[in-house]
Amino acid sequence: MAPSSNVDVLIIGAGPAGVMAGNALASAGVNVRIVDKRPAKVMAGQADGIQPRTIEVFQSYGLARRLIERGNQMHSLAFYNPRKDGKGVERTSRVPDVTAPSARYRFEVTLHQGEIEAIFLDSMREHGLEVERPIVPESIEISEDVEELASKDSYPVKVVLRHLADATLETAPNGVHTNDIDPAIESSSSSLETVHAKYVLGADGAHSFVRGSLGIELEGEHTDHVWGVVDCVPVTDFPDIRNRTAIHSDFGSCMIIPREGDKVRLYVQIAEELQVDEHGRKDRSAVTPEKVMEMAKRSMQPFNLEFPDKPEWWTCYVIGQRVAKNFSVKERVFIAGDACHTHSPKAGQGMNASMNDSHNLAWKLAHVLRGWASPELLKTYELERRKYARDLIDFDKKLADLFSGKAVTTENATGVSHKEFQGLLQSMGGFTSGIGIQYAPSLITDPTAQSLAPGLVIGQRFLPQVIIRVADTRPYEIQDLLVSDTKWKVVFFVGDPKEEKQQAVINAVGEHLLCSKSFARRFTPKGAAQDAVFTLLTVSSTSKDDADYTDIHPGLRTHWSKAFTDDLAIDGRAGGTAYTTYGINPSSGAVVCCRPDGYVSFVCSLQDVTSGRLEEYFGCFMVGASA
Amino acid sequence: MAPSSNVDVLIIGAGPAGVMAGNALASAGVNVRIVDKRPAKVMAGQADGIQPRTIEVFQSYGLARRLIERGNQMHSLAFYNPRKDGKGVERTSRVPDVTAPSARYRFEVTLHQGEIEAIFLDSMREHGLEVERPIVPESIEISEDVEELASKDSYPVKVVLRHLADATLETAPNGVHTNDIDPAIESSSSSLETVHAKYVLGADGAHSFVRGSLGIELEGEHTDHVWGVVDCVPVTDFPDIRNRTAIHSDFGSCMIIPREGDKVRLYVQIAEELQVDEHGRKDRSAVTPEKVMEMAKRSMQPFNLEFPDKPEWWTCYVIGQRVAKNFSVKERVFIAGDACHTHSPKAGQGMNASMNDSHNLAWKLAHVLRGWASPELLKTYELERRKYARDLIDFDKKLADLFSGKAVTTENATGVSHKEFQGLLQSMGGFTSGIGIQYAPSLITDPTAQSLAPGLVIGQRFLPQVIIRVADTRPYEIQDLLVSDTKWKVVFFVGDPKEEKQQAVINAVGEHLLCSKSFARRFTPKGAAQDAVFTLLTVSSTSKDDADYTDIHPGLRTHWSKAFTDDLAIDGRAGGTAYTTYGINPSSGAVVCCRPDGYVSFVCSLQDVTSGRLEEYFGCFMVGASA
Repeated sequence: MAPSSNVDVLIIGAGPAGVMAGNALASAGVNVRIVDKRPAKVMAGQADGIQPRTIEVFQSYGLARRLIERGNQMHSLAFYNPRKDGKGVERTSRVPDVTAPSARYRFEVTLHQGEIEAIFLDSMREHGLEVERPIVPESIEISEDVEELASKDSYPVKVVLRHLADATLETAPNGVHTNDIDPAIESSSSSLETVHAKYVLGADGAHSFVRGSLGIELEGEHTDHVWGVVDCVPVTDFPDIRNRTAIHSDFGSCMIIPREGDKVRLYVQIAEELQVDEHGRKDRSAVTPEKVMEMAKRSMQPFNLEFPDKPEWWTCYVIGQRVAKNFSVKERVFIAGDACHTHSPKAGQGMNASMNDSHNLAWKLAHVLRGWASPELLKTYELERRKYARDLIDFDKKLADLFSGKAVTTENATGVSHKEFQGLLQSMGGFTSGIGIQYAPSLITDPTAQSLAPGLVIGQRFLPQVIIRVADTRPYEIQDLLVSDTKWKVVFFVGDPKEEKQQAVINAVGEHLLCSKSFARRFTPKGAAQDAVFTLLTVSSTSKDDADYTDIHPGLRTHWSKAFTDDLAIDGRAGGTAYTTYGINPSSGAVVCCRPDGYVSFVCSLQDVTSGRLEEYFGCFMVGASA
Repeated sequence: MAPSSNVDVLIIGAGPAGVMAGNALASAGVNVRIVDKRPAKVMAGQADGIQPRTIEVFQSYGLARRLIERGNQMHSLAFYNPRKDGKGVERTSRVPDVTAPSARYRFEVTLHQGEIEAIFLDSMREHGLEVERPIVPESIEISEDVEELASKDSYPVKVVLRHLADATLETAPNGVHTNDIDPAIESSSSSLETVHAKYVLGADGAHSFVRGSLGIELEGEHTDHVWGVVDCVPVTDFPDIRNRTAIHSDFGSCMIIPREGDKVRLYVQIAEELQVDEHGRKDRSAVTPEKVMEMAKRSMQPFNLEFPDKPEWWTCYVIGQRVAKNFSVKERVFIAGDACHTHSPKAGQGMNASMNDSHNLAWKLAHVLRGWASPELLKTYELERRKYARDLIDFDKKLADLFSGKAVTTENATGVSHKEFQGLLQSMGGFTSGIGIQYAPSLITDPTAQSLAPGLVIGQRFLPQVIIRVADTRPYEIQDLLVSDTKWKVVFFVGDPKEEKQQAVINAVGEHLLCSKSFARRFTPKGAAQDAVFTLLTVSSTSKDDADYTDIHPGLRTHWSKAFTDDLAIDGRAGGTAYTTYGINPSSGAVVCCRPDGYVSFVCSLQDVTSGRLEEYFGCFMVGASA
C-alpha cells in the first residue's frame, strides 16, 4: 500500500511562485512540503527580470543583497529608431528605466531563473525545507464534507504523488523549452504516495495540473505575436548593449536585456506567419537560433553585432494572455504564478507577478493555520491577486501591440511613434515597477481614515523612508522594520513627546495598550511572546539631539530599539521627511497598520486607539481570547 | 630531528594584526603560514572598536558587510557633567561621534574581538589558510650572509616553533586578562619544527616574542592611570546608554561604549593608588568587577543603573604609552600591532592601528615576493607606520590626561572643562576616525603635482565619491573600484571625450598605453594577464545621457565596465561631484595613481602620460622587463 501522511501545506511546483511560498512558510515555522517534477533546478535561461517592488519584497525576507550582488542592474532604458537617412537606427533617447519616484530600488535586476531560485532554495534549507524531486501529482481531491471543510484541524485535501525514478525533462530538438515529462518515463516509475493536506498550493506553471484537475478555466487567448529569444555574449560597438534597449527598425523590433557578466538576452519579433500543427499550435520548428541572431543583427544596423559563441540558451514562443477564472477552490486549494496568468515576457512581469502571488498568500495561510485569523482572510487572496492579474494582461496587450507594430517612418506613417511607445512605458511606471499596486477595500483593507496619512495609500505597500532610532541615532529604512515575519506592524506616529499635552495623549495610548482588552493582548495567544503577533513601533517628531527613548510610555515601547524619530541622519544623507511624505500631522500624529506582507491596511488617530478603534479593526478578522 | 620546511611569509600571532595580514596575503595567493599560541580564538571581551577608515579597509577586502550587520553602530557621542544643583550628572550635549566630513561610514562599529577575528578567519579559510595553534616561537634568527639577504629566492629567517600539546591560557584569579602561557605546560610539550621564511611578521602582541628576540626597544612608559572595564547588560533609565558617552562626575569618570545586542562596555577610572608588586607592576588584585560596577553606578546618578547578571567579561589595566624604536629588522622581519605600540583603549584606536599596520605591509610583501617591486619598497612600512604610531601616542596622552581629570565644578575650578574635552575630541576627528592619516613623501609617495587634484591629498586615502558606469548608468562608490587586490589603480580623469580637442588628447594617451614601453606593459610580467598589476579606470565629465563607453580609446578601456562618468545617479541620490570634490579641471582632467591599499600616491596631467611621466614614477620602485 502506498504510504500516506499529513501535512499542513503542500506546495506543488518549485518555480518562482513555489519557492517564494515555500521559503515564506518554512521561515514562519509552518509545517510544509514542496515537490517538483524537475529532477534538478533550472540552470539557464527562462524568466529573469526582477522589478523594484519585488526587490523590496526580497529585502523583506533578507534576500535582496544576494540578488543585487549577483545580478545585473538595469538603470536606463534606451530607444532606437530609424535614421532619417535610411542607414539603420540611431538612439532617440535614453531615460530612467524605473520612473516610480518612491521606489526604494530605482533599477531592475536581471539574473537567470536558476540563480534566483537558488536564493530561495538556500534560504529554505536554512529553515529545514528541501524540494522533493522528481515528483508529479497524480490526482487531487477536496473533501465534500462541510464539517471537515469547516474544521481547522482537518486535512480535507487528498493528493496522490508519484515519485519518479529517473525522469528527465523532454527536450525538444529545436530548443523550444518544455516542462512536459515524457509519458513513457512517467508511467514506468512505480512509487506512489498519498498526502492529506490542510491546504494545497498549485504553483505548477502554465500547464498547471492542479488547475486542470479542479476544472478552473482560463480566460483569454493566444495572440499572433511570435518571439524568438537568445541568451548570448555578443561582440559589438552598439553603445547601449548594457542598457535595456527597445529597437524599432525597418527590419523589425528587437529588445535588449543585459544580463549578469557580459551576457545579453535578445528578444526578436518573428515576422513570418508560422504553420499551425495538428494540435492547433503554431509550429515553431522553422525558427532557429541562427535566424533569431540574424534578425537581431539586421535590426541593429549600422552597428556591428557578432556572436563568436553558440547561444547559451534560446527559445521561441507565442504570446498567450490569459487569466484563471478562480485562484482558489473552497479556500483549501490555491493556484499561483503561471498557473493563474500567462502573458508576454517583454514587460518583465512574469516572475514578479508569480512571486508576489505567493507573498500575498503565505502570511494569510500562516495566520489561519495558527488560529490567529478567521479562514475568511483567505478569500482576500483571489480578490487581491486576480484583480492585479487582469490589470497586468490589459497592460501587456497594449505593450505587445505597440512593440510588435513597426516604427513610424516616412514610408510607414501609420506605425508606432516613438512618443507613443515611450509614453506608455513611462506612464505605466508605477504599474510595471510593481510599486503602484493597490489592493481593493476588504475585510483587511479599510481606507476610512485615509486623510490622516494621505501619503501612505491604504492598499499600497508602505512607502520607504529613513527614520532615526532614538536610543543610538542610527538611521533605519522603515521598510527594514516592516519585515515579512508574519507579524502585524502597528506604527504609532506619536508627534513630539517633549510637548506636555502630547505626552499626555501618548501616555493614555500606552495605558490602553497595557490593558488586557487591548488588541495586542486580546489577539496574541495566551502563553505566546508579547510580540508574537504584533510589533509596535513609535516614530516621534522630536529632534534627534533632544529625543530620549525613555520618554515613550512602556505600553508603547517594548524595547529601546522600537522607538524612532523623524529627523535627518547624522551623516545628513537621508531622513527627516517621513511625516511630510506620509502627510501626517507632526503635532497630533496618527496610527498606521501595516500587513505582514508590507501593505498599508488601516489608519486611525491616537485618540481612536483609546476609544477602541484598533480592537474594532482587528476584531473583523483576527481571532481573540474574548472574541 | 625536528621537521623543517620553507615558507614565503610566516606570521606569528593571530590577533587583529595577524589575521589582517594573513587574509590579505592568502587572498593575494602568497605562500603564507600563520601560527598562534592560543588554543582557540577569543570568545569575549578585549578590543572591539572599529573606526570609519578601518571600515573602509574592511570594505576594500569585501568584509565590511558582516562587520556592519553583526556589530553595533555608534553614531552619537554624548557628554554628561555635574548638575549645578549638585544632584548628580546631566547631559551637556549630544554630538556626532564621527566628525570627519569625508568619511564614507559616519559611525564606529563595536563588536567583540572574537567575532571580528572570525570574519578574517572565515575569509582566510576560503583562500585555503588556517591558523595553526597552539604554537609558540622558540627562537628566531636572521641570516648575516649579505648575499643571502639580498637574494629574492633565499629564506634567510630561521624560526623554531614549538607545537604545544594541550596548552591552556593562564587565567589570573582576579580576571586580569593575560596571554601568558603557563611555563610548566610550555616546556612539557615536545614537538618542535624549524621554518625557513623569506619574511616573518611578528604580530604577537604587547609582550612580543619577536620584538624581544631581535632586541627592538620600546620607547615611552607606563602611566599612573588605572582603569577598570566591565562588559554587562545593565537595566537603566539612563537615556544615552546606547550612545558612546563620556561622563565626568564628582565621583569620577566613566565612559560608555554600547555593544552588540543589549550589551554595554563601561570604562571606569580607578581612583585609588594601587600597591606595586615585586616585579614593579601595579597590583591590580584589589580591583573587583563589583567595585567597577559600583563606581559606574555612582558616576551615573541620579539615573538608575542595575546589573541583574554577572559581567560577561571584565579587566583592569594600567595605561602604557610606548612605541617600538624599529618596526623591522633588515626588512626581513617586521612587527605590527601591539608589538609596535601600546596605548589607552578609550580612543578606540588599538585594533585599528594594528590592522592598518598589516594592511600597509601586506601588498608591499606581495609585490616584492612576486618580483614586481624592488625590496626598497619595504622600507616605507616603518617610515609610514611608525610616524603614525607616534602621533597616536601623542594624541592618547592628551586624551587620557583630560579624561582622567575631574570635571570643572564650583568646588573644583581647575578641573577639565566640558569645552576643553569636547574640543579635543572634535578637533581630532580626522585623526581618530583614521580618515586624515597622511603618509610622508617617499619612494612611492610623490606630491609634486598635487595642484592638479588638490582634493585628493597625496599620501591620504582616496576620497569616496559616487561615479556612474557609462555603459549601464549604474552608480559605483569609487572606493569599491579601488579594492585591496594588490593591484595599482590608475584613474584617468579624461574630461569630456565628446569635445573634439579632448578626444584627441585621450586618443594620444590611449595610443601611448598600447606601446610596449608604457608603464602598464613594461611593469606587467611577460605572460601575465594584461591587468595583473595595473587596473586602468576612466572617469569622464560627460553627461550620463550622452556618454558612450565606445568613445574611450581601446588603450584606455580594457573592458566596458572600466569606463565611468561624473554625473548624478538616475535615482538622484548621489554622484556628480567627483571633479569638484577632487578639484580636477573637468576640461583638461588629470591622472591619479592609487596604491593597492587605497592611498593616493601620485598625480600628473594627461599630457604628462604621453611624455613618459608615469613610466618615470613607477620606474622608481617597480621592476620592469626593460628596467
